Amino acid sequence: MSHKGILIVVSGFSGAGKGTLMKRLVEEYDRYALSISATTRAPRPGEEDGREYFFLSREQFERKIADNALIEYAEYCGNYYGTPREYVEKELADGRDVILEIEIQGALKIRKQYPDALLLFVSTPSAKELRRRLSGRGTETEEVIDRRLHRAAQEAEGIEEYDYIVVNDDLETCVRELHEIIDAAHHAPGRNEEFIEKMRRELEEN
Amino acid sequence: MSHKGILIVVSGFSGAGKGTLMKRLVEEYDRYALSISATTRAPRPGEEDGREYFFLSREQFERKIADNALIEYAEYCGNYYGTPREYVEKELADGRDVILEIEIQGALKIRKQYPDALLLFVSTPSAKELRRRLSGRGTETEEVIDRRLHRAAQEAEGIEEYDYIVVNDDLETCVRELHEIIDAAHHAPGRNEEFIEKMRRELEEN
Repeated sequence: MSHKGILIVVSGFSGAGKGTLMKRLVEEYDRYALSISATTRAPRPGEEDGREYFFLSREQFERKIADNALIEYAEYCGNYYGTPREYVEKELADGRDVILEIEIQGALKIRKQYPDALLLFVSTPSAKELRRRLSGRGTETEEVIDRRLHRAAQEAEGIEEYDYIVVNDDLETCVRELHEIIDAAHHAPGRNEEFIEKMRRELEEN
Repeated sequence: MSHKGILIVVSGFSGAGKGTLMKRLVEEYDRYALSISATTRAPRPGEEDGREYFFLSREQFERKIADNALIEYAEYCGNYYGTPREYVEKELADGRDVILEIEIQGALKIRKQYPDALLLFVSTPSAKELRRRLSGRGTETEEVIDRRLHRAAQEAEGIEEYDYIVVNDDLETCVRELHEIIDAAHHAPGRNEEFIEKMRRELEEN
Protein backbone atom coordinates (compact mmCIF):
# COMPACT_ATOMS: atom_id res chain seq x y z
CA MET A 1 0.00 0.00 0.00
CA SER A 2 2.71 2.45 0.93
CA HIS A 3 5.30 3.67 -1.50
CA LYS A 4 8.22 4.72 0.63
CA GLY A 5 10.68 2.04 1.65
CA ILE A 6 11.34 0.98 5.22
CA LEU A 7 14.79 1.02 6.78
CA ILE A 8 15.30 -2.37 8.39
CA VAL A 9 18.04 -2.88 10.94
CA VAL A 10 18.97 -6.49 11.68
CA SER A 11 20.93 -7.35 14.80
CA GLY A 12 21.42 -10.62 16.59
CA PHE A 13 23.84 -13.08 18.05
CA SER A 14 26.92 -13.86 16.04
CA GLY A 15 26.09 -17.33 14.72
CA ALA A 16 22.34 -16.77 14.56
CA GLY A 17 22.49 -16.65 10.77
CA LYS A 18 21.77 -12.97 10.07
CA GLY A 19 23.92 -12.89 6.94
CA THR A 20 22.25 -15.91 5.35
CA LEU A 21 18.77 -14.64 6.25
CA MET A 22 19.41 -11.27 4.65
CA LYS A 23 20.89 -12.87 1.56
CA ARG A 24 17.80 -15.09 1.20
CA LEU A 25 15.45 -12.11 1.64
CA VAL A 26 17.20 -10.17 -1.10
CA GLU A 27 17.26 -13.20 -3.41
CA GLU A 28 13.63 -14.04 -2.87
CA TYR A 29 11.97 -10.63 -2.94
CA ASP A 30 12.69 -7.80 -5.35
CA ARG A 31 11.77 -5.08 -2.99
CA TYR A 32 14.74 -5.48 -0.63
CA ALA A 33 18.02 -3.68 -1.05
CA LEU A 34 21.03 -4.66 1.03
CA SER A 35 23.06 -1.83 2.48
CA ILE A 36 26.79 -2.45 2.35
CA SER A 37 29.00 -1.03 5.09
CA ALA A 38 32.20 0.88 4.59
CA THR A 39 35.28 -0.12 6.58
CA THR A 40 38.93 0.69 6.93
CA ARG A 41 39.89 -2.87 7.82
CA ALA A 42 41.81 -4.81 5.18
CA PRO A 43 39.85 -7.18 2.92
CA ARG A 44 40.08 -10.85 3.93
CA PRO A 45 40.84 -13.48 1.28
CA GLY A 46 37.79 -13.84 -0.97
CA GLU A 47 36.21 -10.54 0.03
CA GLU A 48 35.39 -8.09 -2.74
CA ASP A 49 35.13 -4.32 -2.60
CA GLY A 50 31.44 -3.39 -2.89
CA ARG A 51 30.22 -6.88 -2.03
CA GLU A 52 31.14 -7.61 1.60
CA TYR A 53 32.25 -4.04 2.31
CA PHE A 54 33.39 -0.87 0.68
CA PHE A 55 37.06 -0.91 1.63
CA LEU A 56 38.30 2.61 2.32
CA SER A 57 41.50 4.18 3.55
CA ARG A 58 41.41 5.89 6.90
CA GLU A 59 41.63 9.20 5.14
CA GLN A 60 38.71 8.43 2.81
CA PHE A 61 36.63 7.24 5.76
CA GLU A 62 37.34 10.36 7.81
CA ARG A 63 36.38 12.54 4.85
CA LYS A 64 33.02 10.73 4.75
CA ILE A 65 32.55 11.40 8.46
CA ALA A 66 33.32 15.07 7.91
CA ASP A 67 30.89 15.22 4.97
CA ASN A 68 28.11 13.64 7.05
CA ALA A 69 28.03 10.94 4.38
CA LEU A 70 27.57 8.13 6.93
CA ILE A 71 24.33 7.41 8.80
CA GLU A 72 26.33 5.97 11.66
CA TYR A 73 29.86 4.78 12.24
CA ALA A 74 31.91 3.25 15.00
CA GLU A 75 35.47 2.19 15.65
CA TYR A 76 36.31 -1.39 16.68
CA CYS A 77 39.81 -2.73 17.24
CA GLY A 78 41.34 0.26 15.52
CA ASN A 79 39.14 0.07 12.40
CA TYR A 80 36.22 2.19 11.32
CA TYR A 81 32.90 0.68 10.23
CA GLY A 82 30.01 2.77 8.93
CA THR A 83 26.84 2.94 6.84
CA PRO A 84 26.98 5.11 3.71
CA ARG A 85 23.99 7.44 3.63
CA GLU A 86 23.56 7.96 -0.10
CA TYR A 87 22.67 4.38 -1.03
CA VAL A 88 20.21 4.03 1.85
CA GLU A 89 18.35 7.24 1.07
CA LYS A 90 18.21 6.64 -2.65
CA GLU A 91 16.78 3.14 -2.25
CA LEU A 92 14.23 4.26 0.38
CA ALA A 93 13.07 7.06 -1.91
CA ASP A 94 12.68 4.51 -4.72
CA GLY A 95 10.32 2.55 -2.48
CA ARG A 96 12.67 -0.28 -1.67
CA ASP A 97 13.11 -1.63 1.85
CA VAL A 98 16.75 -1.28 2.81
CA ILE A 99 18.21 -3.93 5.11
CA LEU A 100 21.35 -3.40 7.10
CA GLU A 101 23.13 -5.53 9.65
CA ILE A 102 24.53 -3.76 12.65
CA GLU A 103 24.94 -4.21 16.40
CA ILE A 104 22.81 -2.54 19.02
CA GLN A 105 24.69 0.76 19.49
CA GLY A 106 24.50 1.40 15.76
CA ALA A 107 20.88 0.30 15.67
CA LEU A 108 19.94 2.84 18.34
CA LYS A 109 21.85 5.60 16.53
CA ILE A 110 19.90 4.79 13.38
CA ARG A 111 16.57 4.88 15.18
CA LYS A 112 17.37 8.41 16.37
CA GLN A 113 17.79 9.60 12.79
CA TYR A 114 15.11 7.36 11.27
CA PRO A 115 12.41 6.96 13.93
CA ASP A 116 10.43 4.80 11.49
CA ALA A 117 13.24 2.27 11.12
CA LEU A 118 12.25 -1.29 11.97
CA LEU A 119 14.64 -2.95 14.43
CA LEU A 120 14.75 -6.75 14.21
CA PHE A 121 16.67 -9.11 16.46
CA VAL A 122 17.64 -12.61 15.34
CA SER A 123 18.17 -15.32 17.95
CA THR A 124 18.89 -19.03 17.89
CA PRO A 125 16.33 -21.27 19.63
CA SER A 126 18.77 -21.83 22.53
CA ALA A 127 22.24 -20.98 23.79
CA LYS A 128 23.23 -24.60 23.22
CA GLU A 129 22.28 -24.29 19.55
CA LEU A 130 24.26 -21.06 19.30
CA ARG A 131 27.34 -22.82 20.67
CA ARG A 132 26.76 -25.72 18.29
CA ARG A 133 26.61 -23.38 15.28
CA LEU A 134 29.68 -21.45 16.34
CA SER A 135 31.60 -24.71 16.86
CA GLY A 136 30.24 -26.17 13.62
CA ARG A 137 31.97 -23.51 11.60
CA GLY A 138 35.16 -25.33 12.58
CA THR A 139 37.16 -22.14 12.19
CA GLU A 140 37.05 -20.86 15.75
CA THR A 141 38.95 -21.93 18.86
CA GLU A 142 37.06 -22.73 22.07
CA GLU A 143 38.31 -19.45 23.45
CA VAL A 144 36.82 -17.45 20.57
CA ILE A 145 33.53 -19.33 20.93
CA ASP A 146 33.41 -18.59 24.65
CA ARG A 147 34.07 -14.92 23.96
CA ARG A 148 31.23 -14.83 21.40
CA LEU A 149 28.83 -16.48 23.83
CA HIS A 150 29.82 -13.98 26.48
CA ARG A 151 29.19 -11.20 23.99
CA ALA A 152 25.82 -12.78 23.11
CA ALA A 153 24.89 -12.62 26.80
CA GLN A 154 25.58 -8.88 26.72
CA GLU A 155 23.62 -8.43 23.49
CA ALA A 156 20.66 -10.29 24.98
CA GLU A 157 20.32 -7.46 27.51
CA GLY A 158 19.22 -5.11 24.71
CA ILE A 159 16.53 -7.24 23.06
CA GLU A 160 13.68 -5.09 24.40
CA GLU A 161 15.02 -2.16 22.35
CA TYR A 162 14.01 -4.04 19.20
CA ASP A 163 10.60 -4.01 17.60
CA TYR A 164 10.59 -7.72 16.88
CA ILE A 165 12.51 -10.85 17.74
CA VAL A 166 12.67 -13.83 15.39
CA VAL A 167 14.08 -17.25 16.16
CA ASN A 168 16.16 -18.76 13.39
CA ASP A 169 15.40 -22.43 13.86
CA ASP A 170 14.40 -23.35 10.32
CA LEU A 171 15.94 -20.97 7.75
CA GLU A 172 13.00 -20.81 5.32
CA THR A 173 10.47 -20.31 8.12
CA CYS A 174 12.57 -17.51 9.51
CA VAL A 175 12.93 -15.80 6.10
CA ARG A 176 9.16 -15.93 5.73
CA GLU A 177 8.62 -14.55 9.23
CA LEU A 178 10.99 -11.65 8.61
CA HIS A 179 9.22 -10.88 5.35
CA GLU A 180 5.81 -10.98 7.06
CA ILE A 181 6.98 -8.66 9.82
CA ILE A 182 8.24 -6.15 7.27
CA ASP A 183 5.06 -6.54 5.22
CA ALA A 184 2.98 -5.84 8.31
CA ALA A 185 4.96 -2.69 9.04
CA HIS A 186 3.91 -1.30 5.65
CA HIS A 187 0.33 -1.29 6.97
CA ALA A 188 0.96 1.18 9.79
CA PRO A 189 -1.20 4.31 9.33
CA GLY A 190 1.92 6.49 9.49
CA ARG A 191 3.20 4.75 6.36
CA ASN A 192 -0.10 5.23 4.52
CA GLU A 193 -0.81 8.88 5.00
CA GLU A 194 -1.39 9.44 1.30
CA PHE A 195 -3.99 6.69 1.07
CA ILE A 196 -5.73 7.84 4.25
CA GLU A 197 -5.89 11.42 3.00
CA LYS A 198 -7.28 10.24 -0.33
CA MET A 199 -10.01 8.23 1.41
CA ARG A 200 -10.89 11.19 3.61
CA ARG A 201 -11.11 13.53 0.65
CA GLU A 202 -13.28 11.12 -1.31
CA LEU A 203 -15.60 10.49 1.62
CA GLU A 204 -16.01 14.19 2.26
CA GLU A 205 -16.89 14.80 -1.38
CA ASN A 206 -19.30 11.91 -1.46
CA MET B 1 6.85 -18.25 19.76
CA SER B 2 4.62 -16.65 22.35
CA HIS B 3 1.96 -18.55 24.21
CA LYS B 4 -0.52 -15.94 25.31
CA GLY B 5 -3.17 -14.90 22.84
CA ILE B 6 -3.54 -11.43 21.38
CA LEU B 7 -6.73 -9.42 21.63
CA ILE B 8 -7.51 -8.16 18.14
CA VAL B 9 -9.96 -5.35 17.62
CA VAL B 10 -11.29 -4.90 14.09
CA SER B 11 -12.97 -1.67 13.06
CA GLY B 12 -13.67 -0.23 9.66
CA PHE B 13 -16.22 1.26 7.35
CA SER B 14 -19.60 -0.39 7.22
CA GLY B 15 -19.43 -2.21 3.89
CA ALA B 16 -15.66 -2.82 4.00
CA GLY B 17 -16.25 -6.52 4.65
CA LYS B 18 -15.13 -6.88 8.28
CA GLY B 19 -17.61 -9.65 9.04
CA THR B 20 -16.57 -11.80 6.07
CA LEU B 21 -12.86 -11.23 6.78
CA MET B 22 -13.21 -12.32 10.38
CA LYS B 23 -15.26 -15.36 9.42
CA ARG B 24 -12.57 -16.39 6.91
CA LEU B 25 -9.79 -15.93 9.48
CA VAL B 26 -11.56 -18.15 11.98
CA GLU B 27 -12.33 -20.77 9.31
CA GLU B 28 -8.80 -20.83 7.97
CA TYR B 29 -6.71 -20.71 11.14
CA ASP B 30 -7.34 -22.67 14.33
CA ARG B 31 -5.78 -20.15 16.58
CA TYR B 32 -8.46 -17.46 16.23
CA ALA B 33 -11.50 -17.22 18.44
CA LEU B 34 -14.34 -14.89 17.57
CA SER B 35 -15.77 -12.84 20.40
CA ILE B 36 -19.55 -12.52 20.26
CA SER B 37 -21.19 -9.37 21.57
CA ALA B 38 -24.13 -9.18 23.90
CA THR B 39 -27.05 -6.92 23.02
CA THR B 40 -30.50 -5.97 24.20
CA ARG B 41 -31.82 -5.41 20.71
CA ALA B 42 -34.30 -7.95 19.37
CA PRO B 43 -32.98 -10.73 17.11
CA ARG B 44 -33.59 -10.14 13.41
CA PRO B 45 -35.01 -12.94 11.28
CA GLY B 46 -32.33 -15.63 10.85
CA GLU B 47 -30.19 -14.46 13.77
CA GLU B 48 -29.40 -17.02 16.45
CA ASP B 49 -28.60 -16.47 20.11
CA GLY B 50 -24.88 -17.15 20.64
CA ARG B 51 -24.06 -16.88 16.91
CA GLU B 52 -24.64 -13.28 15.81
CA TYR B 53 -25.14 -11.99 19.38
CA PHE B 54 -26.02 -13.07 22.85
CA PHE B 55 -29.51 -11.63 23.12
CA LEU B 56 -30.16 -10.38 26.64
CA SER B 57 -32.95 -8.54 28.39
CA ARG B 58 -32.23 -5.06 29.62
CA GLU B 59 -32.19 -6.38 33.18
CA GLN B 60 -29.71 -9.16 32.35
CA PHE B 61 -27.48 -6.68 30.54
CA GLU B 62 -27.48 -4.20 33.41
CA ARG B 63 -26.59 -6.97 35.84
CA LYS B 64 -23.57 -7.75 33.65
CA ILE B 65 -22.54 -4.10 33.75
CA ALA B 66 -22.88 -4.09 37.55
CA ASP B 67 -20.83 -7.32 37.78
CA ASN B 68 -18.04 -5.85 35.62
CA ALA B 69 -18.68 -8.78 33.30
CA LEU B 70 -18.29 -6.68 30.15
CA ILE B 71 -14.99 -5.37 28.80
CA GLU B 72 -16.82 -2.44 27.25
CA TYR B 73 -20.38 -1.53 26.42
CA ALA B 74 -22.26 1.29 24.79
CA GLU B 75 -25.84 2.30 24.10
CA TYR B 76 -27.03 3.00 20.53
CA CYS B 77 -30.56 3.90 19.56
CA GLY B 78 -31.87 2.75 22.91
CA ASN B 79 -30.15 -0.64 22.87
CA TYR B 80 -27.10 -1.87 24.76
CA TYR B 81 -24.18 -3.57 23.02
CA GLY B 82 -21.20 -4.99 24.90
CA THR B 83 -18.31 -7.47 24.96
CA PRO B 84 -18.52 -10.27 27.55
CA ARG B 85 -15.28 -10.50 29.50
CA GLU B 86 -15.24 -14.18 30.45
CA TYR B 87 -14.96 -15.64 26.95
CA VAL B 88 -12.24 -13.17 25.90
CA GLU B 89 -10.06 -13.80 28.94
CA LYS B 90 -10.46 -17.57 28.84
CA GLU B 91 -9.48 -17.78 25.17
CA LEU B 92 -6.52 -15.41 25.60
CA ALA B 93 -5.26 -17.49 28.53
CA ASP B 94 -5.56 -20.61 26.35
CA GLY B 95 -3.24 -18.94 23.84
CA ARG B 96 -5.87 -18.16 21.23
CA ASP B 97 -6.05 -14.81 19.48
CA VAL B 98 -9.45 -13.32 20.13
CA ILE B 99 -10.98 -11.17 17.40
CA LEU B 100 -13.75 -8.73 18.03
CA GLU B 101 -15.48 -6.22 15.81
CA ILE B 102 -16.26 -2.87 17.32
CA GLU B 103 -16.27 0.82 16.45
CA ILE B 104 -13.64 3.31 17.47
CA GLN B 105 -14.98 4.41 20.88
CA GLY B 106 -15.17 0.79 21.97
CA ALA B 107 -11.75 0.07 20.45
CA LEU B 108 -10.16 2.86 22.49
CA LYS B 109 -11.87 1.68 25.68
CA ILE B 110 -10.45 -1.78 25.07
CA ARG B 111 -6.97 -0.46 24.51
CA LYS B 112 -7.10 1.24 27.92
CA GLN B 113 -7.77 -2.08 29.63
CA TYR B 114 -5.63 -4.21 27.32
CA PRO B 115 -2.72 -2.02 26.21
CA ASP B 116 -1.37 -4.95 24.19
CA ALA B 117 -4.51 -5.22 22.09
CA LEU B 118 -3.94 -4.93 18.36
CA LEU B 119 -6.21 -2.37 16.67
CA LEU B 120 -6.88 -3.03 12.99
CA PHE B 121 -8.82 -0.84 10.59
CA VAL B 122 -10.39 -2.20 7.41
CA SER B 123 -10.97 0.11 4.47
CA THR B 124 -12.19 -0.27 0.93
CA PRO B 125 -9.78 0.83 -1.84
CA SER B 126 -11.89 3.94 -2.45
CA ALA B 127 -15.05 5.76 -1.37
CA LYS B 128 -16.59 4.90 -4.72
CA GLU B 129 -16.07 1.21 -4.08
CA LEU B 130 -17.59 1.62 -0.60
CA ARG B 131 -20.71 3.18 -2.15
CA ARG B 132 -20.82 0.40 -4.75
CA ARG B 133 -20.72 -2.29 -2.06
CA LEU B 134 -23.35 -0.58 0.07
CA SER B 135 -25.61 -0.18 -2.98
CA GLY B 136 -24.85 -3.73 -4.12
CA ARG B 137 -26.46 -5.17 -1.03
CA GLY B 138 -29.71 -3.97 -2.56
CA THR B 139 -31.28 -3.71 0.86
CA GLU B 140 -30.58 -0.07 1.62
CA THR B 141 -32.22 3.11 0.39
CA GLU B 142 -30.10 5.93 -1.07
CA GLU B 143 -30.70 7.84 2.14
CA VAL B 144 -29.29 5.04 4.30
CA ILE B 145 -26.27 4.70 2.01
CA ASP B 146 -25.61 8.43 2.22
CA ARG B 147 -25.84 8.26 6.00
CA ARG B 148 -23.36 5.37 6.08
CA LEU B 149 -20.92 7.24 3.85
CA HIS B 150 -21.24 10.27 6.09
CA ARG B 151 -20.53 8.04 9.06
CA ALA B 152 -17.53 6.54 7.20
CA ALA B 153 -16.16 10.06 6.76
CA GLN B 154 -16.33 10.51 10.54
CA GLU B 155 -14.73 7.12 11.17
CA ALA B 156 -11.90 7.97 8.78
CA GLU B 157 -10.86 10.73 11.20
CA GLY B 158 -9.80 8.11 13.74
CA ILE B 159 -7.64 5.86 11.54
CA GLU B 160 -4.38 7.04 13.14
CA GLU B 161 -5.54 5.55 16.45
CA TYR B 162 -5.17 2.11 14.89
CA ASP B 163 -2.00 0.05 14.73
CA TYR B 164 -2.59 -1.08 11.16
CA ILE B 165 -4.80 -0.34 8.20
CA VAL B 166 -5.67 -2.96 5.61
CA VAL B 167 -7.43 -2.43 2.32
CA ASN B 168 -9.99 -5.04 1.45
CA ASP B 169 -9.71 -5.12 -2.31
CA ASP B 170 -9.28 -8.85 -2.87
CA LEU B 171 -10.76 -10.87 0.01
CA GLU B 172 -8.14 -13.65 0.13
CA THR B 173 -5.25 -11.18 -0.05
CA CYS B 174 -6.77 -9.21 2.77
CA VAL B 175 -7.29 -12.30 4.95
CA ARG B 176 -3.64 -13.21 4.42
CA GLU B 177 -2.51 -9.67 5.25
CA LEU B 178 -4.52 -9.62 8.46
CA HIS B 179 -3.05 -12.97 9.44
CA GLU B 180 0.49 -11.76 8.70
CA ILE B 181 -0.01 -8.62 10.76
CA ILE B 182 -1.23 -10.67 13.72
CA ASP B 183 1.61 -13.17 13.23
CA ALA B 184 4.12 -10.35 13.24
CA ALA B 185 2.69 -8.98 16.49
CA HIS B 186 3.51 -12.28 18.18
CA HIS B 187 7.18 -11.48 17.58
CA ALA B 188 7.24 -8.33 19.73
CA PRO B 189 9.72 -8.71 22.60
CA GLY B 190 6.97 -7.88 25.11
CA ARG B 191 5.11 -10.96 23.95
CA ASN B 192 8.17 -13.18 24.26
CA GLU B 193 9.44 -12.39 27.73
CA GLU B 194 9.62 -16.03 28.69
CA PHE B 195 11.78 -16.93 25.71
CA ILE B 196 14.05 -13.93 26.20
CA GLU B 197 14.54 -14.76 29.89
CA LYS B 198 15.33 -18.36 28.98
CA MET B 199 17.97 -17.25 26.44
CA ARG B 200 19.51 -14.87 28.96
CA ARG B 201 19.68 -17.54 31.65
CA GLU B 202 21.23 -20.05 29.27
CA LEU B 203 23.78 -17.56 27.97
CA GLU B 204 24.77 -16.55 31.50
CA GLU B 205 25.28 -20.19 32.46
CA ASN B 206 27.24 -20.94 29.34
